[in-house]
This record gives sequence, structure tokens and C-alpha cells, in this order.
Amino acid sequence: MINETKRAPIGKYISQIYRKGNSFISKEISKFGIGSGQIMFLIELYKNDGISQEELSEILNIDKATTCRAIKKLEKEELLIKVKDENDKRAYKLYLTEKSKSIEDNIKNALNEWEKHISKELSQEEVNILINMLKKICKSKNIK
Amino acid sequence: MINETKRAPIGKYISQIYRKGNSFISKEISKFGIGSGQIMFLIELYKNDGISQEELSEILNIDKATTCRAIKKLEKEELLIKVKDENDKRAYKLYLTEKSKSIEDNIKNALNEWEKHISKELSQEEVNILINMLKKICKSKNIK
Repeated sequence: MINETKRAPIGKYISQIYRKGNSFISKEISKFGIGSGQIMFLIELYKNDGISQEELSEILNIDKATTCRAIKKLEKEELLIKVKDENDKRAYKLYLTEKSKSIEDNIKNALNEWEKHISKELSQEEVNILINMLKKICKSKNIK
Repeated sequence: MINETKRAPIGKYISQIYRKGNSFISKEISKFGIGSGQIMFLIELYKNDGISQEELSEILNIDKATTCRAIKKLEKEELLIKVKDENDKRAYKLYLTEKSKSIEDNIKNALNEWEKHISKELSQEEVNILINMLKKICKSKNIK
């Protein structure tokens, strides 16, 4: 057994890579009025234009308050519009705007650039192994 | 070559695991008045009691403004004290308090618990491989 106190744990590396990614992506996208905290909401919206705020919160596994704050910021920057759901007056559907549609490529390029940076030091085989392990962790019931 | 657009990228999994870890650890430590954004500063302070604010910022690779905010919150919760550096009146040294010393084990246990959750689905060999790859990514000049 490796001594847990002697080696830097997985969580620490994950956190370091996450923070560096955040800072890299922020630099690339801040010119569009998007903070790193909102990007994943926008990415999900590119996949599911017209999704409800509640569904978005569920899919991303992010609490309602945080989702609400991110949506408000994106709305303020005219990157999405909220439309009352005709079938459920308390619910909102979220739609991309011309502005957010026009920057879709820029956003995705920023994410792809970061992905390239991450995987530059790894062989394709290592990338595949890494993805499989990370997927295993994400799917684990222990971290739900 | 794997098609970048067809598979979930490393960055996405890293982000998911990070966010889940944040939420897990937050639950464990919020009772001590510590938010997940401050924990890494406290962990560093456990290693380097008396470190300067500037050094802390450098070691963690976190900008001065964010470091300043985190330090203020920890100070407010009486988890650290700032003392003017005798040799440099503009600088501050940061010291643990009785309160932060008394909860060191709780903080470290929360991190260890999360580490166990992450690695539960992996064999010891996989854990070693994963750590080596994450370390490689962290050390890469591409993501500095």
C-alpha cells in the first residue's frame, strides 16, 4: 500500500489541472462576456437548445441556485433568452441567441485548445487509458 | 485518431470530478466555517506555518486578488492571523490559530475520504498509473 500521506493524491492533481484549465479557458473566452463558471451551461445549451433550466441543472449535476446565477449572467450578456414554458408556467426554457450562436466555434476552439494542451505530453494510448479511468471514476456510485 | 468531437474530453471529466469533490469536501468542512475555495490555502498553511501571503499565492499558482479574498475569509473565521513582516513592512506572514490547528485532522480526514471515494473503483496499479499521468500533465510546460 502506498502511504496516503506521503504522495500527492489524485484529488490534488485533479484540482490543479482544473484550475489551470479554468484560467486558460477564461482568458480565451472573457472577451465574449463569459466567465469560466458559465461555460459548461453554454456548452450544454449548444447541445440542447430549448432545454429547461431544471433539466440543465440536473444534467450538469449542479444545484439550482448556482444554475440560476449562471443563467442570469448569460442572459445579461445576451447569450441566452428565457422563455416561459407554455405547459408549465413556473418553468423556463432556455434558448441560444444570435450572439451565442455566432461564438459557438470560438468557445469550442478554446476547449479543444485546452484539451490539446492537456494531452500533449501523453501518447494516444495513454490518453485512452486516462479517459477510461476518469470515466470509471465519474460513473462510480461513490462520488454521486 | 479518435475524433475529438465524438468523445467526452479529458477536461470534461476533470471538471466533473473536481466539482463533485468540491461539493463532497464542502459538506464535510462547512461546519468549521471554511468554504471549498479556502481549503487549499489552509492545507498549504498546515505545511508552511508562517509563510507570507505572496509565497502562498506563488506556491498555489493563484492570483493575488483571489489569495487575498481567501485569506480575508479565513481571518474572519479566526482560522489564521496576519502578522506584519518585521523585515518588510508591506508584507504579511500568515499563522495558524488554535482553532485551525484543532481542526487539522478533520480537514485532512475529509480530503482522505474524498481520495478513497475517487480511487475505490480502481486497482492499486491503476491508481499509480493515473497519478503518474496526472503528474505528467501538471508538470507539462504547456499548461503553466
